[in-house]
Amino acid sequence: MLARLTGEAAPGEGVLVGPGDDAAVWQPPAGMAVVVSQDALVEGEDFHRDWTGPHQLGRRCLEVALSDLAAMGAVPAWCTATICAPSATVLDDVLALTLGLREAGAEAGCSLVGGDLSGIRGPLVVDVCVGGWVEPGSVLRRDAGRAGDRLAVTGSLGGAAAGLRVLRDGAPAGASAEQVRGWLDAQLRPRARLAEGRRLAALGVRCAGDLSDGLLVDAGRTAAASRCRAEIVAEALPLAPGLREAFPEDWRELALGGGEDFELLVAAAPAVLARAIAAWPAGLAPLTEVGRLRDGAGVALVEGGAPRTPPPVQSRHFT
Amino acid sequence: MLARLTGEAAPGEGVLVGPGDDAAVWQPPAGMAVVVSQDALVEGEDFHRDWTGPHQLGRRCLEVALSDLAAMGAVPAWCTATICAPSATVLDDVLALTLGLREAGAEAGCSLVGGDLSGIRGPLVVDVCVGGWVEPGSVLRRDAGRAGDRLAVTGSLGGAAAGLRVLRDGAPAGASAEQVRGWLDAQLRPRARLAEGRRLAALGVRCAGDLSDGLLVDAGRTAAASRCRAEIVAEALPLAPGLREAFPEDWRELALGGGEDFELLVAAAPAVLARAIAAWPAGLAPLTEVGRLRDGAGVALVEGGAPRTPPPVQSRHFT
Repeated sequence: MLARLTGEAAPGEGVLVGPGDDAAVWQPPAGMAVVVSQDALVEGEDFHRDWTGPHQLGRRCLEVALSDLAAMGAVPAWCTATICAPSATVLDDVLALTLGLREAGAEAGCSLVGGDLSGIRGPLVVDVCVGGWVEPGSVLRRDAGRAGDRLAVTGSLGGAAAGLRVLRDGAPAGASAEQVRGWLDAQLRPRARLAEGRRLAALGVRCAGDLSDGLLVDAGRTAAASRCRAEIVAEALPLAPGLREAFPEDWRELALGGGEDFELLVAAAPAVLARAIAAWPAGLAPLTEVGRLRDGAGVALVEGGAPRTPPPVQSRHFT
Repeated sequence: MLARLTGEAAPGEGVLVGPGDDAAVWQPPAGMAVVVSQDALVEGEDFHRDWTGPHQLGRRCLEVALSDLAAMGAVPAWCTATICAPSATVLDDVLALTLGLREAGAEAGCSLVGGDLSGIRGPLVVDVCVGGWVEPGSVLRRDAGRAGDRLAVTGSLGGAAAGLRVLRDGAPAGASAEQVRGWLDAQLRPRARLAEGRRLAALGVRCAGDLSDGLLVDAGRTAAASRCRAEIVAEALPLAPGLREAFPEDWRELALGGGEDFELLVAAAPAVLARAIAAWPAGLAPLTEVGRLRDGAGVALVEGGAPRTPPPVQSRHFT
């Protein structure tokens, strides 16, 4: 239904039956495993329509879902989406939202093959399911970390949380327009680290996850799944440009507890990580070592060589 | 998140990574095509909590989604689900809903491998994505009908719409308790016609769809996709037991326009359909010829050998 709304598009690679039938049919490459994830964004919980237009929102919904495929080292192939729209919603907005989904999908090689459109007496809900493929032996898993592994992240941290702060409270004094734009982009226009996930898998990394809920929460998840303790070094964090200067009190909270940066968190043996950093292509989001896995449980923060109480977690989801 | 709520379950066949990672990983049988569909049920639009408990609702959400796999001739393998629950929702209800999803999934051979749980300032939303596999050459498609094909349906028609009528207005005079129970079951406890879809594909049928929106709407879809005209014979319809007697004025409307029977509609060459009906196993929902595809477009109703104006369509979805 949903895909039909915006007319025919070229079917994606391997798509045998696209939108318009009861279900979509897709032939994965021979021998490959199928990777699927579903992510909902709910108005008032995950976004506000004052902050984002429908086209940008559609793009964001797809990128957020794709981030989970990136974290598995997968190649996206298809997506389906449910839109629950209040009856007062303008059709143009539904079309713009769908176009945003489609556009972001096309850029990632994943075509909108189906979904559902429903009314709702409540907020707008966009729920995206994404699918793709991965070599069965190269899956990036949360539970593949080992004590002694180094932790690393792609890109920079805290930008999305700073962008949310700007949307809520306005820009902080002294921040440049370019810095503010960078934070807003991180919040409103995240990009899934698909190429980075593929490269990590190719470089022999086997443990990764995305930072949807912030480094503290997600390092805790990786540590728990791998039955280890995660130790994060505050000075090592690749902060979003201008973050520390503009938020001298709160930068740790934004970088560690804010969430929605949709970067990847990696655990790998020191030699594997060193090789990956040395071989890392300049065109990808940089890969930076930020800590290590040890025996034990939980997450610890180290600053100036000493333990430091972690800042509060700002996640907007109940997890 | 969602799957983790209700603890560990045995992973389904071919599931390499289940709940708890960023995404699920599943290895389909070699050479098979992957079939996916997504279906949302929204409180106030698709169900009322006065009419159904959370466990029954969970089962219904999964069966509704599985009906689309049945209509492709597919074998279910996994599902993911998003639940958007108002903050006043009792945790027990979320658990019961998830248990219903899981139970119906286990009965269909499909395990809950992931999903999302979110708050919502609005109605309860349950959005299920189901996946499975099919032999690429045996897909049941909406667009594979040809002029001259006979139309057939599985099971009986009008029960779900009669059940909805009972929930809204009470039982009609003269209906037996058993009949009323049958209609309520059709509305509240639908079962996807998975075995029927597989058998149809094995018997050489290549065109099918499900009756989520009623025979008139869905015959129209099959006819349009196949570039034909559908002709339905009123006397041939396999009505739900007691329907005609209890609703002497409205039985046509309930059987043709009501929707949610989740039976399958088939188009096949006369010889193929005759063979299928002759070879049809007694344990499956019966297969009944109800009309034909002709050259032309649209849907026509024939009664007593003459054209008859079709009754209004009651679909609760905007399509």
